[in-house]
Amino acid sequence: MAPESSEQPALEELDRAECLRLIAPGGVGRVAYDDGEGPAVVPVNYTVDGESVLFRTSVSGRLNRSLLSAVTGGQVRAAFEVDHFDEGSRTGWSVLLRGGAHRLSDDERDKAVRVDPWPGGEREAWFRLAALEISGRRLLGT
Amino acid sequence: MAPESSEQPALEELDRAECLRLIAPGGVGRVAYDDGEGPAVVPVNYTVDGESVLFRTSVSGRLNRSLLSAVTGGQVRAAFEVDHFDEGSRTGWSVLLRGGAHRLSDDERDKAVRVDPWPGGEREAWFRLAALEISGRRLLGT
Repeated sequence: MAPESSEQPALEELDRAECLRLIAPGGVGRVAYDDGEGPAVVPVNYTVDGESVLFRTSVSGRLNRSLLSAVTGGQVRAAFEVDHFDEGSRTGWSVLLRGGAHRLSDDERDKAVRVDPWPGGEREAWFRLAALEISGRRLLGT
Repeated sequence: MAPESSEQPALEELDRAECLRLIAPGGVGRVAYDDGEGPAVVPVNYTVDGESVLFRTSVSGRLNRSLLSAVTGGQVRAAFEVDHFDEGSRTGWSVLLRGGAHRLSDDERDKAVRVDPWPGGEREAWFRLAALEISGRRLLGT
């Protein structure tokens, strides 16, 4: 049996509508981008706006500054991942959005759905990742 | 006050030893890599071996195949992220390892710490990400 056909049904692909439904409540997601030294991943608070995710982060902190620097002045390819796993039952799901991220202007920011970031302090950089591709998987347990 | 100095102590940087201590139990982490079409992120089961993380994934599935393809035949820059957040208290931590990932040979695989993957089915591709850089942050709540 070829490896391609040996996957058991414990892992199922999710369609776009189900992916959007799962991430709709917002919360914590992870943005991945390239800062010129390879991939980096930063957890952020997010909210969903159509087929985009909106998130904001501090302008301080090295990784945040590299995200800001990568995105400022244009759009960069980025990925946004949200997941939920239950260690006990070994079930869960993950959703991945891939597309372009750009920093919101003050005007766009004012119109955007409000994101409530957890950490205190200055939280000035807002971003939108518009999904070109949405995929997800559900882990049904073994 | 400049944005750089307005960060409140609610977010603290973690040192390397604390990062390694936090991720030591293993479980679910997220590997970020570039598949030629920008960043992608895949959740995987992992275990820690010194300053490396070992993880394995199916050879099937589009993202897994792109990871396999990116890593096969050499080493690729990758990032590995582990976090734990409590929605109620708005506290938590995240750790990021950045470095090179390579696929383990059968020999290396036999010597490696055993990783117990959750999904059933064929789980043949093993990887090691050796950390060149380890960073982390703890969110103390607001």
